[in-house]
Amino acid sequence: MARFFKKREESKGLAPGSLVFIGNQKVENVRIRVIDYDKSNLNELQLDDIADSKAFKETNTVTWLNIDGLHDLEMMQELGNIFDLHPLLLEDILNTGQRPKLEEFDNCLFLSLKMIRYEKEKQVIIAEQLSMVISNTYLITFQEQPGDVFEPVRDRIRKQKGRIRETGIDYLAYALLDTVVDNYISIIERLGEQIEDVEEEVLTDPNPLVMQKINTFKREMNYIRKSVRPLKEALLQLLKLDSELIKDNTIQFLKDLLDLITQATEAIDTYREMLSDQLNIYNSSISNRMNEIMKVLTIFAAIFIPLTFIAGIYGTNFDYLPELHFKYSYFIFWGFMIIVALTMLAFFKRKNWL
Amino acid sequence: MARFFKKREESKGLAPGSLVFIGNQKVENVRIRVIDYDKSNLNELQLDDIADSKAFKETNTVTWLNIDGLHDLEMMQELGNIFDLHPLLLEDILNTGQRPKLEEFDNCLFLSLKMIRYEKEKQVIIAEQLSMVISNTYLITFQEQPGDVFEPVRDRIRKQKGRIRETGIDYLAYALLDTVVDNYISIIERLGEQIEDVEEEVLTDPNPLVMQKINTFKREMNYIRKSVRPLKEALLQLLKLDSELIKDNTIQFLKDLLDLITQATEAIDTYREMLSDQLNIYNSSISNRMNEIMKVLTIFAAIFIPLTFIAGIYGTNFDYLPELHFKYSYFIFWGFMIIVALTMLAFFKRKNWL
Amino acid sequence: MARFFKKREESKGLAPGSLVFIGNQKVENVRIRVIDYDKSNLNELQLDDIADSKAFKETNTVTWLNIDGLHDLEMMQELGNIFDLHPLLLEDILNTGQRPKLEEFDNCLFLSLKMIRYEKEKQVIIAEQLSMVISNTYLITFQEQPGDVFEPVRDRIRKQKGRIRETGIDYLAYALLDTVVDNYISIIERLGEQIEDVEEEVLTDPNPLVMQKINTFKREMNYIRKSVRPLKEALLQLLKLDSELIKDNTIQFLKDLLDLITQATEAIDTYREMLSDQLNIYNSSISNRMNEIMKVLTIFAAIFIPLTFIAGIYGTNFDYLPELHFKYSYFIFWGFMIIVALTMLAFFKRKNWL
Amino acid sequence: MARFFKKREESKGLAPGSLVFIGNQKVENVRIRVIDYDKSNLNELQLDDIADSKAFKETNTVTWLNIDGLHDLEMMQELGNIFDLHPLLLEDILNTGQRPKLEEFDNCLFLSLKMIRYEKEKQVIIAEQLSMVISNTYLITFQEQPGDVFEPVRDRIRKQKGRIRETGIDYLAYALLDTVVDNYISIIERLGEQIEDVEEEVLTDPNPLVMQKINTFKREMNYIRKSVRPLKEALLQLLKLDSELIKDNTIQFLKDLLDLITQATEAIDTYREMLSDQLNIYNSSISNRMNEIMKVLTIFAAIFIPLTFIAGIYGTNFDYLPELHFKYSYFIFWGFMIIVALTMLAFFKRKNWL
Amino acid sequence: MARFFKKREESKGLAPGSLVFIGNQKVENVRIRVIDYDKSNLNELQLDDIADSKAFKETNTVTWLNIDGLHDLEMMQELGNIFDLHPLLLEDILNTGQRPKLEEFDNCLFLSLKMIRYEKEKQVIIAEQLSMVISNTYLITFQEQPGDVFEPVRDRIRKQKGRIRETGIDYLAYALLDTVVDNYISIIERLGEQIEDVEEEVLTDPNPLVMQKINTFKREMNYIRKSVRPLKEALLQLLKLDSELIKDNTIQFLKDLLDLITQATEAIDTYREMLSDQLNIYNSSISNRMNEIMKVLTIFAAIFIPLTFIAGIYGTNFDYLPELHFKYSYFIFWGFMIIVALTMLAFFKRKNWL
Repeated sequence: MARFFKKREESKGLAPGSLVFIGNQKVENVRIRVIDYDKSNLNELQLDDIADSKAFKETNTVTWLNIDGLHDLEMMQELGNIFDLHPLLLEDILNTGQRPKLEEFDNCLFLSLKMIRYEKEKQVIIAEQLSMVISNTYLITFQEQPGDVFEPVRDRIRKQKGRIRETGIDYLAYALLDTVVDNYISIIERLGEQIEDVEEEVLTDPNPLVMQKINTFKREMNYIRKSVRPLKEALLQLLKLDSELIKDNTIQFLKDLLDLITQATEAIDTYREMLSDQLNIYNSSISNRMNEIMKVLTIFAAIFIPLTFIAGIYGTNFDYLPELHFKYSYFIFWGFMIIVALTMLAFFKRKNWL
Repeated sequence: MARFFKKREESKGLAPGSLVFIGNQKVENVRIRVIDYDKSNLNELQLDDIADSKAFKETNTVTWLNIDGLHDLEMMQELGNIFDLHPLLLEDILNTGQRPKLEEFDNCLFLSLKMIRYEKEKQVIIAEQLSMVISNTYLITFQEQPGDVFEPVRDRIRKQKGRIRETGIDYLAYALLDTVVDNYISIIERLGEQIEDVEEEVLTDPNPLVMQKINTFKREMNYIRKSVRPLKEALLQLLKLDSELIKDNTIQFLKDLLDLITQATEAIDTYREMLSDQLNIYNSSISNRMNEIMKVLTIFAAIFIPLTFIAGIYGTNFDYLPELHFKYSYFIFWGFMIIVALTMLAFFKRKNWL
Repeated sequence: MARFFKKREESKGLAPGSLVFIGNQKVENVRIRVIDYDKSNLNELQLDDIADSKAFKETNTVTWLNIDGLHDLEMMQELGNIFDLHPLLLEDILNTGQRPKLEEFDNCLFLSLKMIRYEKEKQVIIAEQLSMVISNTYLITFQEQPGDVFEPVRDRIRKQKGRIRETGIDYLAYALLDTVVDNYISIIERLGEQIEDVEEEVLTDPNPLVMQKINTFKREMNYIRKSVRPLKEALLQLLKLDSELIKDNTIQFLKDLLDLITQATEAIDTYREMLSDQLNIYNSSISNRMNEIMKVLTIFAAIFIPLTFIAGIYGTNFDYLPELHFKYSYFIFWGFMIIVALTMLAFFKRKNWL
Repeated sequence: MARFFKKREESKGLAPGSLVFIGNQKVENVRIRVIDYDKSNLNELQLDDIADSKAFKETNTVTWLNIDGLHDLEMMQELGNIFDLHPLLLEDILNTGQRPKLEEFDNCLFLSLKMIRYEKEKQVIIAEQLSMVISNTYLITFQEQPGDVFEPVRDRIRKQKGRIRETGIDYLAYALLDTVVDNYISIIERLGEQIEDVEEEVLTDPNPLVMQKINTFKREMNYIRKSVRPLKEALLQLLKLDSELIKDNTIQFLKDLLDLITQATEAIDTYREMLSDQLNIYNSSISNRMNEIMKVLTIFAAIFIPLTFIAGIYGTNFDYLPELHFKYSYFIFWGFMIIVALTMLAFFKRKNWL
Repeated sequence: MARFFKKREESKGLAPGSLVFIGNQKVENVRIRVIDYDKSNLNELQLDDIADSKAFKETNTVTWLNIDGLHDLEMMQELGNIFDLHPLLLEDILNTGQRPKLEEFDNCLFLSLKMIRYEKEKQVIIAEQLSMVISNTYLITFQEQPGDVFEPVRDRIRKQKGRIRETGIDYLAYALLDTVVDNYISIIERLGEQIEDVEEEVLTDPNPLVMQKINTFKREMNYIRKSVRPLKEALLQLLKLDSELIKDNTIQFLKDLLDLITQATEAIDTYREMLSDQLNIYNSSISNRMNEIMKVLTIFAAIFIPLTFIAGIYGTNFDYLPELHFKYSYFIFWGFMIIVALTMLAFFKRKNWL
């Protein structure tokens, strides 16, 4: 299966804006949760019917609607109608192979990005698509399945930690993004440690398994980069957008977030370079080992082949072979062979092969 | 034949704007089809004489004129006269080696691009040139031969699916482009799956055939890139152009298309990098195998060459060779050889070669 | 001789604007040809004395003065005086190692570029410098020697083909440039075909000659690029210049030319990449062959060295060597050797070397 | 441990602006030092309580508050309150894994950068974070531990050397930055000398230790680059900022500093390229050595294997083997072998292997 | 010694603008020469005391003050006072490790660049720093030692050649720069010829010396690039500066100079690429040779090892070995061996190894 590229086969030839779910259905039932708050009140509930969300559309409070599961096209269409979402926006939410991007619509900002997770046993990064619709009065997030990294944000809302209860929807969106990027960095870190560990191994024991490891890390780093870099672009765009949906005092926080994500992309580049260097070291080490092997072979061959030849001579059955009949021939023969062997050894010593 | 570059030999030295067909004639007769529609009416017909197209020039309906086959220069000239097309525009349509581009003329926009097709048996991408003339009242498309990816668009027009019947020529042009880019992505995907499959093979069985595969994929990816990247530039240009031929509500769709094509170019780059990595793995694997081979050779040589030498000594015919005459010489001789062999094995064990 | 860089030794330390001819004199006598035309009249003649050119300076007709041969400094100086050319301009014309460029002077535009020619027997690209002075009433072109690619343009002037007789000096300049760029593309094509042919050879028979070919193509592509890329820059500059010497209806043609030259530079880059890939394939193929060779050696050595050792044992002359005296020893000995050989073969089979 | 990336695990999920110290505590007690001066007066003291710093907040003199040690969160919070520092600013100071950057706040400029130190025994660069808060009336610097490169600046303040006592806070900040960048250059220099020394070694004795050295230098250069390049960006930003905190006559000094840091980044790039070249030389040298080894083996094998074969023939025990019984057979046999050996030597001579 | 980076150790920690000479003193006494001229008068003299230069500060003539030797700090300080030079400017003049740059001061332009010289016996490029102070009424140049490339310019001033006596200080500065850049090109040329010569050698006889040569050229090209590229930047900056010190009619000359230096940087890049290609060819050639060597070894081993084995069999002393006693055994034995040998040869022939 093409992991780096999601199948769009199903949507081929359909009218743009047609709703098709592209991806694997990861959850049986769609779950709709609402957190609605302002400075003094907090309301947290789960909706059974998407129609109930209409009540939250125009309130003055901060409304965060979170949808887990994207396969229910009918519900999505209804949601689109309630919140007046552009067909292209809905199409992008449903296409989980979407490249991270920011788009400005008349009534809202749309941000599509990836949350990533490291599956240690398979040594594979899994990306899940997160879509955000940021409007004046509500924030809607779409995830492929339940389970996310946002619990700390929910806690801060519940426990009134930090400024989150005193600020608006833009700050909530920022807080979620911040958590996602924090998670990027934490995963890059974890991979990074493993990469730095390989460095030692490559020098001491360069075997094909090490090469395989290096290539796995390389592939995963590329995979992360595919999620991180477009998000950086989207953030830059958001900062230049001058949308009235983003208030002035959130800008400083977004700039800080941009720094964080810049750090992440630089870390990815650093590790990619490091992996390239490791591959070079690996290849050089392989060549070095080959030299070692060849030296051993050559030394053995070059010493014993001439000796065997000499022994061969005195194994011939010529009628007249004078040396065979002298008394000390055998010992002279040995002496000669030892001299030859020592000469060869000296020769290899001088060539620095021993 | 230079596949990456179409012969222009025939046009050398001709006046600019001269009509010459550059390419291979792929169809015997030119086919002219017209689809003419508005919200309520639809008219689909095939023209036998190009002169009949004049009737559609200034209508208020959306007119889509599709020409299959480019070799009939006379007809092209007549068409140029009817629709008032710039000689350079006609020249570009006829030159199937044209680089994808957008050009603005007084009365129309001209867009030249490639449709691609994957011939599985030859493992080769085939590109066909598609030219579009977008005016206020008509859209003319030129293809090298019948058969295209536009059938779903025609269906949507016929069955009034989506917004296509309610929008203008710019949306029709967008819908066609969208189909072409969808097709790019679908082909990149298909190649991509094959590329990801090779990864396994490269590690387990690095043979020259794998290398050949990798290089074939590389070449095809480069070939696709040659079609996709200039189209992205052309789209960017179109978005900046601020032409009155493109209405405001189509812009959002074109932006979406730009995202799609950006995704395609990034996928191409990702796969190209992946192929480079695979080549590196391939080369490292080859080196590893060489090491394996050399180890086997060295171990055999280093064990048996000394033994053969010892046997050689006692095969000599010296008159006086005391060891030959002791009773247990032969067994001591065996014992000694076994000790030598074991010593060698221990040596290689310590060197980690066994 | 440094082919990539023309000797400027002679001009070192001279005052800027001093007239020195840098290059090899390729023609004995300077030849001066004039083509002077408007819509209805055409006058084609050869001048013996440069002073005669004065008559054409301020006419209303289109005057094309073509100089073949640059070594006559005195004549160049006189020409400079007649047409009021800046000393730096004259210096640049005479320096055939000049990088292609566009320069704007008070009374004219100066364009310096290269015409290229492929010498098949030497497999070498030869570049000749072409300088153009574009003024309001005349176009002067300077070539190093007679013989150029402009004959079709002259023909079009003579036979009133195309729009050339109805347009001005800017269009004439464009027509000449178009011919030069057409020629670039035709040569790149020809090289390109040879490059695509090498691809096959590299896979089937990687020998040093193939490598030499690849490197020759690489060098020639670099050589062409040195001529083509700066011309593209110069054209871009010309389009941005907004000079009154270039009329509005010529702009569209220049844009078309820019597309053509962009296509040329992209083709060069594509072929350069292709050559790099071929070198990689070549190197991998060499490694593969090495593996093949080593396998053969190892198989032979590993099978026969142990056998030879066994034979060696029974060639020893020990007094007491019981096996020698059994009746079927020799056949058992053969059987044992065959078993050893088969075991080795099975071993190599399992290692996939056979 | 991931050296290229500081653990942020502790801060994950916290509200932005929460104070968490990220890094290793390198000092037991925080030390607060104040240098307060103008043209005529100088006041240097150590504070025990951060609350005492309040007195310096609004003076007309230049106040430099230096904090060594970052782990005391309570104190940092108090300092933040006294000097009215933005929570994000405080968070950045405490995160020692911060990427160098400049940020503009309402009341101050914030600059985060790295001081580097070369630990010779471990051949490792150590980076310490330095944060600067530049306001109208004070400069606060934060270091991870006591001990810095600023002693010369303090001396210049004490001894009224140069213009430092006559200028303001911006010049003081510049002077500190200048010292830090000077230190970068001095460390790059020291590494650079070692790198240039390796060049010789790589050619004469390419052993795995040399490769390890090259890779160590590469890694350290990358590590330095991670500190230097973002600082250059920050400086560029500072010059474009047009902040009123930076006076006009300091600009020239900052431009000079920018030149210095540009020189540093170019030196890093030069050395990185040099190291790449050295790795290439290393690999070529390894291949060359392999060739040498193989030549020796081949020469020995090709000379003695045929000779041994010849001796083997006359060691056979055929009843009827006529050559054995001629009188001079043995000498002819020797002569033949010598001819064979000389022929082989001549062959290798002609192949240029000897 | 770090050749790519001048020691700044001495200046570490000093106040910015402190005068320290960084470099090697290359001349015993400082020499001060003045050339003062206008259209009709010329005055050329050597000053013993820097104080005498004051007389030339405000004249209407063109004054060129040339200082050879930079180590006399006192004199430099005095000069600085007389001509009112900024301390940073003086510091930059004295730092011979300065990166080429242009800086604008209130009363003058400051240009720092490198003159280069090729020491053939050491095959090393030597760079000497040249600093220029361009004011309204004087030009001061600073060199590390006497001896420069400016003699032709002095001659042109003395002999009234070209326009130099009729133009101002800006043209004089241009004339000097032109000479320096001419010298760059002449040295690049000379290296370039040697590089193009190596190409042949690499193909015919790839030995480690060739590799060393290639790497030397690479290093020197990098060294030159370090001088040339920043000068190009400085020139670009100068052209954008719109300083009143540069008159309009000098601009055209500076543009011409920019073309020249662009040509130089492109030539450097071309040669660097060529050297990279040569290294690749070198490595491929080494691999090819290895293949050749291995083939010879394998052919010898594969032919003679089986033969030796066969001979070994008939050298055994089995009591019952029937073949030994047939009359024609020995000839059959030879025949068999010849068949084996021919079979092997045919095998290698088919494998294309012979």
